[in-house]
Amino acid sequence: MPVDRLSLAELRRQEPLLAAHVGPFGYFASGDHQVDPRKLAQALIERLDIQRTAAVAVAPGMVQLADGNQFFADEVIVANGLAAGTLLGLPVPLPLRPVHGDILRLGVPQALRPLLTHTVRGLVHGSAVYLVPRDDGTVVIGATQREDQQTGISAGGVYQLLRDAQALVPAVAELELLESTARARPGTPDNSPLLGRVSAGLIVATGMFRHAVLLTPAIAKICLEILAGAPDPQWDQFAATRFSTEGLSTKEPR
Amino acid sequence: MPVDRLSLAELRRQEPLLAAHVGPFGYFASGDHQVDPRKLAQALIERLDIQRTAAVAVAPGMVQLADGNQFFADEVIVANGLAAGTLLGLPVPLPLRPVHGDILRLGVPQALRPLLTHTVRGLVHGSAVYLVPRDDGTVVIGATQREDQQTGISAGGVYQLLRDAQALVPAVAELELLESTARARPGTPDNSPLLGRVSAGLIVATGMFRHAVLLTPAIAKICLEILAGAPDPQWDQFAATRFSTEGLSTKEPR
Repeated sequence: MPVDRLSLAELRRQEPLLAAHVGPFGYFASGDHQVDPRKLAQALIERLDIQRTAAVAVAPGMVQLADGNQFFADEVIVANGLAAGTLLGLPVPLPLRPVHGDILRLGVPQALRPLLTHTVRGLVHGSAVYLVPRDDGTVVIGATQREDQQTGISAGGVYQLLRDAQALVPAVAELELLESTARARPGTPDNSPLLGRVSAGLIVATGMFRHAVLLTPAIAKICLEILAGAPDPQWDQFAATRFSTEGLSTKEPR
Repeated sequence: MPVDRLSLAELRRQEPLLAAHVGPFGYFASGDHQVDPRKLAQALIERLDIQRTAAVAVAPGMVQLADGNQFFADEVIVANGLAAGTLLGLPVPLPLRPVHGDILRLGVPQALRPLLTHTVRGLVHGSAVYLVPRDDGTVVIGATQREDQQTGISAGGVYQLLRDAQALVPAVAELELLESTARARPGTPDNSPLLGRVSAGLIVATGMFRHAVLLTPAIAKICLEILAGAPDPQWDQFAATRFSTEGLSTKEPR
């Protein structure tokens, strides 16, 4: 994706509501895109006819749901994010930890539309913040990273998001706060994915941290490679067994 | 109510989580109380068997609801806050304007309980902010005053509340944001109530701005005086007819 360094004046021609003092220059990624996680999840649920019941256990070729139902298949792919770590029946432990994040959804008054026409990312007081304009006239502001075990929405997190977003785009103060949410992303000890086969009939694809939604197509493609038995060796670094001595000991010498 | 000036050290003995730099001194109102508006409203609804349908018109001794039902009585007291200004049938116009305010409700983690044992009020950057600890372990933070016609929750308002509350009590950053709400209070041209008889069989009691909940018992007592035909003359300054030339012209000379 091409990235060009632009002066502040050039950036403000792209986004007139950027603060006058955000810095001497910035970067413009002309091929940047966005994915709406809610639309993506809804589309996947509809296309794949996904069961909305949590899985509690897996075995090679078998998934058991919380309601007692069992499903059988030649292959099972464990891709349920943070919940993967609590599944029974996995041949290796999955060392996932929750990294909480707060996200705000804001409405833009008619007089200020469009607030932005590109996703704006910045670093304010050392914290990353982004503003994503959606087609429906709302703006999504994210995202804090907390490992404080607080599963609810953090008052300090909301404060930080509003403070930092206003530093980039002062008109954020004029928006309507429609929704605050907090979610946990699945982190791993090295913050890289857990991706690969753990036994015959059982593949793991989780631990994507903040990036699961954006990586969905790439992960699906790699899973197809694994299913076909010929994954690119570059994915070996993400082996789901890499934190397990058990997993390592059964690994074939290369 | 007795109010004592206390040094910061003395205040912090009362409230150990007050910021170390809030100022050289503060005031302690030992007889301060609080009212939970939700509990009060619920209790009134239950005790008075209140209809939950909006009133659309009044006349002396009559109230008409939006569902078409009419209620008759010797006297009608118009006390429906901001909505009083839109009632049909009033002999004088009620000059009420909406003054919007944002309020936050936050949960206190077990390790920080009790965050506060008194209501804390402060002035930060010239803005008033208060923190009210509730029996259930939550804290209410309010309240902004906006006349910006924005009926939703203001992102700038939430930011200001969190910023100013943290300036008084830094641990606010550790709380969980449970709820953000915005409501409009009924303001009048001089920000004093509209309180008194406007015609035989019709009394008005509205325009209490931010203070309706706290004033409820006093307003009820004054309404009883008006019903008895002998209100204290000190309430004449709040006459509901004072902004109406029509109302003034029909007033008896004194």
